[in-house]
Amino acid sequence: MAVDGSRILGDHDRPTQAGRGADSVLDDLIAMAQWTTEILRRSDPGARVIGVGAGAPGPLDTVSGVVRLTPNLGWTELPLRQRLADGLDLPAAIDNDANCAILGEAWVGAARNVRNAIGMTIGTGIGGGLILDGQLYHGASDCAGEIGHVTVDMNGRRCGCGNYGCLEAYASGTAIATRAIEQIGAGETSSLLELAGGDINAITAATVFVAAREGDEVALELVRDTAHYLGTGVAMLINIFNPQMVVILGGVTQAGETLFFEPLRREVSRRAFKPAVEACQIVPGTLDGLAGVYGAARIFLDQQATLP
Amino acid sequence: MAVDGSRILGDHDRPTQAGRGADSVLDDLIAMAQWTTEILRRSDPGARVIGVGAGAPGPLDTVSGVVRLTPNLGWTELPLRQRLADGLDLPAAIDNDANCAILGEAWVGAARNVRNAIGMTIGTGIGGGLILDGQLYHGASDCAGEIGHVTVDMNGRRCGCGNYGCLEAYASGTAIATRAIEQIGAGETSSLLELAGGDINAITAATVFVAAREGDEVALELVRDTAHYLGTGVAMLINIFNPQMVVILGGVTQAGETLFFEPLRREVSRRAFKPAVEACQIVPGTLDGLAGVYGAARIFLDQQATLP
Repeated sequence: MAVDGSRILGDHDRPTQAGRGADSVLDDLIAMAQWTTEILRRSDPGARVIGVGAGAPGPLDTVSGVVRLTPNLGWTELPLRQRLADGLDLPAAIDNDANCAILGEAWVGAARNVRNAIGMTIGTGIGGGLILDGQLYHGASDCAGEIGHVTVDMNGRRCGCGNYGCLEAYASGTAIATRAIEQIGAGETSSLLELAGGDINAITAATVFVAAREGDEVALELVRDTAHYLGTGVAMLINIFNPQMVVILGGVTQAGETLFFEPLRREVSRRAFKPAVEACQIVPGTLDGLAGVYGAARIFLDQQATLP
Repeated sequence: MAVDGSRILGDHDRPTQAGRGADSVLDDLIAMAQWTTEILRRSDPGARVIGVGAGAPGPLDTVSGVVRLTPNLGWTELPLRQRLADGLDLPAAIDNDANCAILGEAWVGAARNVRNAIGMTIGTGIGGGLILDGQLYHGASDCAGEIGHVTVDMNGRRCGCGNYGCLEAYASGTAIATRAIEQIGAGETSSLLELAGGDINAITAATVFVAAREGDEVALELVRDTAHYLGTGVAMLINIFNPQMVVILGGVTQAGETLFFEPLRREVSRRAFKPAVEACQIVPGTLDGLAGVYGAARIFLDQQATLP
């Protein structure tokens, strides 16, 4: 995406093709950015591209610009910032993708002028970004914000992180699908299987929300349980951070007010401290899939002065 | 307590006698402070008392200086700062007691020069104070830091706050005693009853730790379970905050390394993200009961310039 101030000049979406390896992904990224830069320069000969910002799945080191480990992409100790800067001959800045998402929402989205905003990104996993006292909070070693790994049941489901009973193990998109597949596998009658074309393993969180909207009982219970889990997690965050806003991002928010946000807010009210609940709005992001891209641009602008 | 810079000139401990009402408690506080001031002036005619700081059980409003509600003391909407300022004819500042405790540890105790430090005060309840990026974090309405109300089991014990399965409902001093009383009441054989003088309701968390140190099996299991609960809670805080330090305060820390800190750290390592665990020390406070008093003095120094 190309931005001018906070105005988007253009954006382009492309699958990562992680299987081809880090070098190939980086070549792709750099080629896309060069092509964007070229178009900008042709359309406005006075245009100047001042730098590039990128969000990557963490954990990463924002000071050295190195991505430490991304299981889904198979990257280890990848000097992403240096590679982007060298490839584009431009200064570059990177941050965690969930940090970029809440920063984007705080810059031009739902959390504008909000002093304390927690971003919760619900997708394959559950990620988090924290704006505290007006600043993105990184912690001691850029690992802060793992709010998908708060506990809902200390003796519960094993989580991908190794812990037991994390919120992510119950309420991520992946976990919603897993719970659905378990129920159908156990013989529950539901339209879910049909919606998934008869292939039980093709059931996704999206299938569950579609079936729930059509009144399927099993799907409705799955959605209700999801609201209980997420409400428990968000209640903890409200008790801990007393934020003005929790911004929920990701596909599940498309389930809408009745199926998703209303039951979530009810569960939060049942569990969190009243004065903290009263101080806090729980809202969907307003930038759709672009929150992280805006945030990456903002990361560059914020770090610009201190980049090597 | 009277302080000169960060040097204690003297301190005095006195039961609150909350039953007599807020006016009586305030008269007591003011009389003690006047007496302290008087002694200081007599011992050093050049001494100047510049103000007073106080920690109170929250929730309170640090801007207006009003304590909103303190169930244990029976105070509601008490203008504590104004009352102290009027009574002593000195500028006054107040903050939450758990905030004062971690601020004291950050000023002159265990967390000196620590940029991100979480204080966990385990007593009747479990309180928390957050130093984030070098500053005490208050949240939107001074309610932040309720880390005793993270969940360990969303369908578990009812907590005093109304929620279910909070850490505080399992691992506060009160909760440790309750779990012990339940076990003894259910007929478990243990030295706990004898240690409590034969009165089951006289069993406290301190009794449990004494019995555990003497090798009592029931007490040892209670202590192990406490480490599991607290470890689950501290692991969440480490995943969320990625702090350099978690400072544990309160009587339970006297249980020491073998009975308390070692099993706690083991549970945290089992549950939290490895890079975040590696970045974080889990330590007892070094100021004993005085952390909050130091912190209250520091609160005054920090707020001094902006006080009305």
